[in-house]
Amino acid sequence: MSPRITLLAGGVGGAKLAEGLAGICPPERLSIIGNVGDDQEFHGLWVSPDIDTLTYSLAGLIDRRQGWGLAEESHQVLEGLTRLGSETWMSLGDRDMATHIFRTQLRRQGIRPSAIAQSIAESLGVRVNLLLPTDDRLQTQVKTPQGWLAFQEYFVREQCQPEVLDICFDGADKAWPTPEAIAAIEAADILLIAPSNPVVSIAPILAVAGIRQAIAASRASRVAVSPLIGGRTVKGPADRMLAAMGHSSSNRGVAASYAGLIDGLVIDTSDAADRPGLEAESLQVFTTGTLMHSREDKARVAAQVLDFARTCRREEVDA
Amino acid sequence: MSPRITLLAGGVGGAKLAEGLAGICPPERLSIIGNVGDDQEFHGLWVSPDIDTLTYSLAGLIDRRQGWGLAEESHQVLEGLTRLGSETWMSLGDRDMATHIFRTQLRRQGIRPSAIAQSIAESLGVRVNLLLPTDDRLQTQVKTPQGWLAFQEYFVREQCQPEVLDICFDGADKAWPTPEAIAAIEAADILLIAPSNPVVSIAPILAVAGIRQAIAASRASRVAVSPLIGGRTVKGPADRMLAAMGHSSSNRGVAASYAGLIDGLVIDTSDAADRPGLEAESLQVFTTGTLMHSREDKARVAAQVLDFARTCRREEVDA
Repeated sequence: MSPRITLLAGGVGGAKLAEGLAGICPPERLSIIGNVGDDQEFHGLWVSPDIDTLTYSLAGLIDRRQGWGLAEESHQVLEGLTRLGSETWMSLGDRDMATHIFRTQLRRQGIRPSAIAQSIAESLGVRVNLLLPTDDRLQTQVKTPQGWLAFQEYFVREQCQPEVLDICFDGADKAWPTPEAIAAIEAADILLIAPSNPVVSIAPILAVAGIRQAIAASRASRVAVSPLIGGRTVKGPADRMLAAMGHSSSNRGVAASYAGLIDGLVIDTSDAADRPGLEAESLQVFTTGTLMHSREDKARVAAQVLDFARTCRREEVDA
Repeated sequence: MSPRITLLAGGVGGAKLAEGLAGICPPERLSIIGNVGDDQEFHGLWVSPDIDTLTYSLAGLIDRRQGWGLAEESHQVLEGLTRLGSETWMSLGDRDMATHIFRTQLRRQGIRPSAIAQSIAESLGVRVNLLLPTDDRLQTQVKTPQGWLAFQEYFVREQCQPEVLDICFDGADKAWPTPEAIAAIEAADILLIAPSNPVVSIAPILAVAGIRQAIAASRASRVAVSPLIGGRTVKGPADRMLAAMGHSSSNRGVAASYAGLIDGLVIDTSDAADRPGLEAESLQVFTTGTLMHSREDKARVAAQVLDFARTCRREEVDA
């Protein structure tokens, strides 16, 4: 019987490992818990960028060049909204807009956001279990010298230019976990954290009551893949954000942000020098090329991560 | 000083006379009161077909071939919604979708529907006053052997096939008129009713409390243009609907549906035989070719209607 695998994943980087795993695991044995902290309403429509990136990637519909959005999109709706005087800095394609319209309609009908995400994923042909950490509102906010910004305002509108002074997950204190996310963590034989931004992609998932505890209590092999390559992020502001959150902007900082939640860390070959320091903190370390461009890269990294996780047993604390 | 003109108009036929008038009147002297009875929510978005037909026609953006919708539209959003499992019998183009998204967002913010309609019209370059009869919900419903249908369900989904047993304007008893509509009627020197469906395009406007009374009390020259040509409608089910509402399916029926509200009626040359009967009921009648295809047709009919209205004085009842 193949192991039950549960992956915590953010957007672009997370989707690449998710795709790699989906290519080599039976879909009914793979659950992916995505990040809703980036969600924001645009034009009265509920947009869920990280969940859509996962869905479109797993459906093979993603725009491979930019890593998000649907391939070969037109932007007639956005042009129309611009003409009507709306702010349209968030690029939303026409077929992508259908997802947001559909999601918003069902949310207003009172349907659980997780059920909506699952319905969208199934309609687009995704066969793995795509789960939300919570059905409640939880929004990542970034404090900058110009005040608090919603994540997309910081990330897209301001293009990560403002200095990051603080980060919070608005609503996290009132967010209940979905039973599906808790069940997927509890049932997992292997628990993985994708090479996503620890501070704004993974931390919002961990901020939901019960999720961090379920991972901490799990008997699964627990492995994270670092998003750093050569000490920096491939894209996105994770390195600066780690620093802003008081962690070192290095694999040590990544490990610190997952303290008590992982038994092993996969790091890029270019960061092999970090290995002794990580091992000194009782982490098992696997080194490989973690940059994923091609389908082959994704499959190789996924297989290596699973092989490592199988050998990477948890130290028994109170056996 | 050119006369102040107020036109009551439905969708396609109404928009043609509206365009003709807009071409020959100073825009600040022309007010058009549209029909909201066809409004319906699709995919959680508020669609206002007759108002959009007026707006797009007056903006010169209408699809001239079909008479509604925007020219050269794509349908990526609708295809996306179909893929997600939504019912998509109502054809909504991508740039048209921007209008519905924008309208819905502003409605949810509590902005008056009339202000939204005006904002959309202005953004698209419309210079005449486009008014709503009411900011409240008023929905035309059609009773058929299969039960009550919203107008678009009857008109688009069922393609006017079911027998019409009755018609009602749901919400009309609780709908307040907009102050702008009442003011435009009271200030008018010439009050016109477009060649629209009397039963489902004009009657819903008249069903709003105060509007019928304001027209009845007006000192303006009041003229309707019949939608019939050769005793039948150009398109749409007005002839069958007149019959269902107990009116004769003829210009006599049209006149009866506007009893007490008009002093003159413009009829098509092909229906010249109706003239003696109409005049016997104290209506002044003007006969011309009322079919409007080209820009020249619209300008000619508009000019003839205005000329006729100028000569068409109201009989003083209690002078």
